[in-house]
Amino acid sequence: MKAKVHVTLKSGVLDPQGKAVRNALSSLGFGGVTGVRQGKYIEIDLDETDPARAREAVDAMCRKLLANTVIENYAIEIAD
Amino acid sequence: MKAKVHVTLKSGVLDPQGKAVRNALSSLGFGGVTGVRQGKYIEIDLDETDPARAREAVDAMCRKLLANTVIENYAIEIAD
Repeated sequence: MKAKVHVTLKSGVLDPQGKAVRNALSSLGFGGVTGVRQGKYIEIDLDETDPARAREAVDAMCRKLLANTVIENYAIEIAD
Repeated sequence: MKAKVHVTLKSGVLDPQGKAVRNALSSLGFGGVTGVRQGKYIEIDLDETDPARAREAVDAMCRKLLANTVIENYAIEIAD
């Protein structure tokens, strides 16, 4: 079973990496870009075969390691 | 118009960051994790209102800046 996790900065939290990407895009001549936010995308392969238990395990992983819940949100998607 | 971009390592390319996450999860007592791959997730806000043109622009951004196409794949999703 595979879990896909998106970790993104909460709105209001400064994103210097996203700002750097935006500036770089502008330097490369890409106009019309009004904002860039960069997050993490993590794919986890699990032995677990029950979707509910897999989600629960990945939720615990996010809270304990993958996301800093003070400044980041996370979203979990369980695939087959 | 918003574009969501996933940049992931091609299969076969070593992912030390993913391996570190996997080891850390194991140390924290999360068993049953058979693999972790870490990629980037980028949200881009665009002035462009035509989905086809927006996708074309973001595709060029990926090829020129956001992804290293030698070792990385990218996927673009255009939202409203």
